[in-house]
Amino acid sequence: MAALSKSLALTRALPATASILARRTVYVMSPRDNFMSDYQLTLPSFTRRAEQLFGHKTVTSDCGDRVDVTTYADYVKSCRKVGGILEELGIGQGHRVASFAWNNINHLELWYGVPNASRVLHTLNIRLFAEQITYVVNHAENEAIFVDKSLFKLLWPLVDTFKTVKHIIVMDDGVPGDLPDDPRILNYEELKASVPEVEFDVKDERMPASMCYTSGTTGMPKAVVYTHRSQYLHTMGILSADSLGVRETDCVLPVVPMFHANGWGLPFATVAVGSDLVFPSRNMTPKHLAMLMEKYKVTIAAGVPTIWMGVLPELKGRDLSALRGIPVGGSAVPLSLSKAYEKATGLPIMQAWGMTETSPLGSVCSISSKHANAPQETIDHLRQSIGYPVVGVDMRIANLETGEDLPWDGETTGELEVRGPWIASSYYNPDQPADNFKADDWMATGDVAAISEDGYVYISDRSKDLIKSGGEWIGSVEVENIIMSHPKVKEAAVVAVRSKRWMERPMACVVLADDEELTHEELIEFLEPRMAKWWLPDVTVFVDEIPKTSVGKFSKKDLRKQFEHVVVA
Amino acid sequence: MAALSKSLALTRALPATASILARRTVYVMSPRDNFMSDYQLTLPSFTRRAEQLFGHKTVTSDCGDRVDVTTYADYVKSCRKVGGILEELGIGQGHRVASFAWNNINHLELWYGVPNASRVLHTLNIRLFAEQITYVVNHAENEAIFVDKSLFKLLWPLVDTFKTVKHIIVMDDGVPGDLPDDPRILNYEELKASVPEVEFDVKDERMPASMCYTSGTTGMPKAVVYTHRSQYLHTMGILSADSLGVRETDCVLPVVPMFHANGWGLPFATVAVGSDLVFPSRNMTPKHLAMLMEKYKVTIAAGVPTIWMGVLPELKGRDLSALRGIPVGGSAVPLSLSKAYEKATGLPIMQAWGMTETSPLGSVCSISSKHANAPQETIDHLRQSIGYPVVGVDMRIANLETGEDLPWDGETTGELEVRGPWIASSYYNPDQPADNFKADDWMATGDVAAISEDGYVYISDRSKDLIKSGGEWIGSVEVENIIMSHPKVKEAAVVAVRSKRWMERPMACVVLADDEELTHEELIEFLEPRMAKWWLPDVTVFVDEIPKTSVGKFSKKDLRKQFEHVVVA
Repeated sequence: MAALSKSLALTRALPATASILARRTVYVMSPRDNFMSDYQLTLPSFTRRAEQLFGHKTVTSDCGDRVDVTTYADYVKSCRKVGGILEELGIGQGHRVASFAWNNINHLELWYGVPNASRVLHTLNIRLFAEQITYVVNHAENEAIFVDKSLFKLLWPLVDTFKTVKHIIVMDDGVPGDLPDDPRILNYEELKASVPEVEFDVKDERMPASMCYTSGTTGMPKAVVYTHRSQYLHTMGILSADSLGVRETDCVLPVVPMFHANGWGLPFATVAVGSDLVFPSRNMTPKHLAMLMEKYKVTIAAGVPTIWMGVLPELKGRDLSALRGIPVGGSAVPLSLSKAYEKATGLPIMQAWGMTETSPLGSVCSISSKHANAPQETIDHLRQSIGYPVVGVDMRIANLETGEDLPWDGETTGELEVRGPWIASSYYNPDQPADNFKADDWMATGDVAAISEDGYVYISDRSKDLIKSGGEWIGSVEVENIIMSHPKVKEAAVVAVRSKRWMERPMACVVLADDEELTHEELIEFLEPRMAKWWLPDVTVFVDEIPKTSVGKFSKKDLRKQFEHVVVA
Repeated sequence: MAALSKSLALTRALPATASILARRTVYVMSPRDNFMSDYQLTLPSFTRRAEQLFGHKTVTSDCGDRVDVTTYADYVKSCRKVGGILEELGIGQGHRVASFAWNNINHLELWYGVPNASRVLHTLNIRLFAEQITYVVNHAENEAIFVDKSLFKLLWPLVDTFKTVKHIIVMDDGVPGDLPDDPRILNYEELKASVPEVEFDVKDERMPASMCYTSGTTGMPKAVVYTHRSQYLHTMGILSADSLGVRETDCVLPVVPMFHANGWGLPFATVAVGSDLVFPSRNMTPKHLAMLMEKYKVTIAAGVPTIWMGVLPELKGRDLSALRGIPVGGSAVPLSLSKAYEKATGLPIMQAWGMTETSPLGSVCSISSKHANAPQETIDHLRQSIGYPVVGVDMRIANLETGEDLPWDGETTGELEVRGPWIASSYYNPDQPADNFKADDWMATGDVAAISEDGYVYISDRSKDLIKSGGEWIGSVEVENIIMSHPKVKEAAVVAVRSKRWMERPMACVVLADDEELTHEELIEFLEPRMAKWWLPDVTVFVDEIPKTSVGKFSKKDLRKQFEHVVVA
């Protein structure tokens, strides 16, 4: 290149003064410079906003027979009281306390109150099997559990299996009844009344804020630990206009449980921008949810597909003119459901994708400008994707065997991998080493997908043997191991079959030992005390053998193919 | 509190086993844990998105006689070529290069290309006075300057005053004419053609990315250095739905120069979400801007109020149905202008606030739900505020004397202070110590404001003697010092008076030495070679004395009051 060579020639031929000039040492800027504020990305920033700017906005918990309306001003005071309670109970910074609660104002107080006091909130999944609850409480070393009174009876029988729990703090959610006379039981409202408000104090954005267990794969649930930084950035991701774009003018109904996959981050995002919030509390009936949508002029309602299937018939005749978005994740949304919602509300369902390990927001399906005038069948096809990654998240597909990066051509499939500032890089203290965390921050998701040229991600299968029922994972290997512990069973494989209500349900394929006989009902009777009720297979088929892969493993792929016609309720 | 005391009593009376349990050591979580990805917030994340997801979207530079349309796919390749050029020229990581350019595709290539290669881009303000250009180029130790060919003649006469500049890279923007035969002059297109694409490489989010000089107060311009982290987070701030909420479906026309206050961050935000971009390049005439808005179906057009005053009459009869937002910052928007735009386009002007030191986004004036049904006069009043702080930015007002935190009652005024992850914490290598950076990350803005109970910020005055003309600062103390160097002048103060076109213009209040005579014209003749043309006072009043404060300083406040009726063109 002429011009450049000329210039370089000049450099070589510089006169003495210019040569000195060329060697003159300039300051070299580096990451050690600090000309920008090192303001830490912590959750107290959001509660401070809520108090200063949106003190008059409200959080409503309405379960039908009881309605609590709290202003943000009072809400943030309660968050500081939570810090006071933790101090009073002698729970140190960096220690864990758990919640066992519905979506309601008290739970929201813990969501911010615990991390804002530099303690870590473990949102216990109330649907876990007893043995799993014991496992996760002990694994997280929870020192206190805040429990909704309506859920107390579910938790209390397990209390003696908890190794580190010193206090059970009961939060009144309007159910009658006495509690046992036990010194471990404390009353949340009484505690709040007696302790001082404690100033929020988080100095470092990398401080752990909360934790959520995933039951995504085999073995016991695994712990994902979110930091203040990851929660803050995830919130910014949710707020971006092309993602959920939550606004001050919104009234948000989070149907997705706050103990499920970080509550999709909605509790943080809404408080940050001052949306009004409506919680169903302990009443999750479709009719009640539909009523809330109309009564509170809900603009955004978020939940798993199963919920929306139930709610659909209840929407008839209701005024839903305020509604502007129905973000749905946890499972693929059947096109028929999305179309039914478009008919009922004028809005298609907004498919989103994520997992506990991804905070969870990874992608949102919005129709990009390129397709604005596309024919309906193109739009329908796009709506069956999980959209393209939101700002902050990188995605790629990797060859299942070699890990090689695959092209985005809409056809080639590989394991979906993600990375970003709100993606887990390891589990907390896992029982066995996890193989899903790769080099350069990439995490393998277990989903098999193709990506179109313009980034739309189509999930086609799973790389691991999982069943997703009503938005929650069922570990098929867990279930089949228990089935195989039955004396009459020789071999058993568990695969997903389609369910009208739950999207997927487990089906057991059982090979009996020689000359033995067993019915589905007898099998269930055996399994019932050994696993969570919702893990029980809906149907059992007795087969002569389970198809195997070349290396002798169960070929779930073949089984799924063989029974793809099976549909359960 | 009964329940708690009971519990504490129990702790004291614990049996031996429980006591051991209570002392059992649990793991203490801390910021040193790394369960979340330490994914760095760097600008290459955004160019990667642009390439992968939005390769077909376009950047158009249209100055009327020349139209360049570039796809994002080609654009990102060019960004990597910029890295190649920097390598080829031997400019090290952490070193600075400057741009001297209009808003166009080449400038956008530098915006990402330079920081993505771990060099630092200094966006030179083409409107600075020659002496200031020399000062900032030397202060930043720029080793190369990328200059639009149409601006070459403005820059070249200064080249021998630059101490560290080795290369002037000329970017063809369609003007004819030959360049001097000088080995320092290189051709941008030729360089791009000859160098390889260099992979983006930024390992640490705290790496400086770009720098912008402010002339906010007295003395020479001061350098603000943005980091990858601050630019990334500022981008997220711009994208949030309650802020500018830029989307993939937008077509954005950034009229605000890319060398002014970090170009309001729009070059980063648009590329991150894949908006189409339209640049006016070297044609900033109102008629051309209005034409661009119609021709390209612009949805968001951003610039200072002065621009929109000029454009308004040109909008007549044009189809602006695509337009959805006119964010305006840099000066207060007169209500009459906002109303005229509402009439012409159906959209009120969206007042935003920021400064070079704040990246710049601090607040946006949107009408919150509380005021949705307020009477027009309330809405009008709100529109005269700068809105409330965007997510990520904290604001407060401080007593001008004591620094004490003042109440938000809509009446009490104090100096506006801000903090957040995209607010400067110091200037780079300042000539004199800056007093605007306070403890706990707070920065004093120089604006005097009251804040309403719900967070709307009303700026009433300035704590420092500044004049803002067409969105750019004029240092009144600078101007008066030069006036006072005139042999016939005894004392002079310079204050802002209202201007129809520029919002504010400088007026000189001059006390002549005994028995001397001087006219405004003679004064201007004296000042012309000594300052930037646009700093010259529009009007001079000769007075007997300048009002003073109790400590003998010029009371600008009194002067402004005295001459508040003065309005210039």
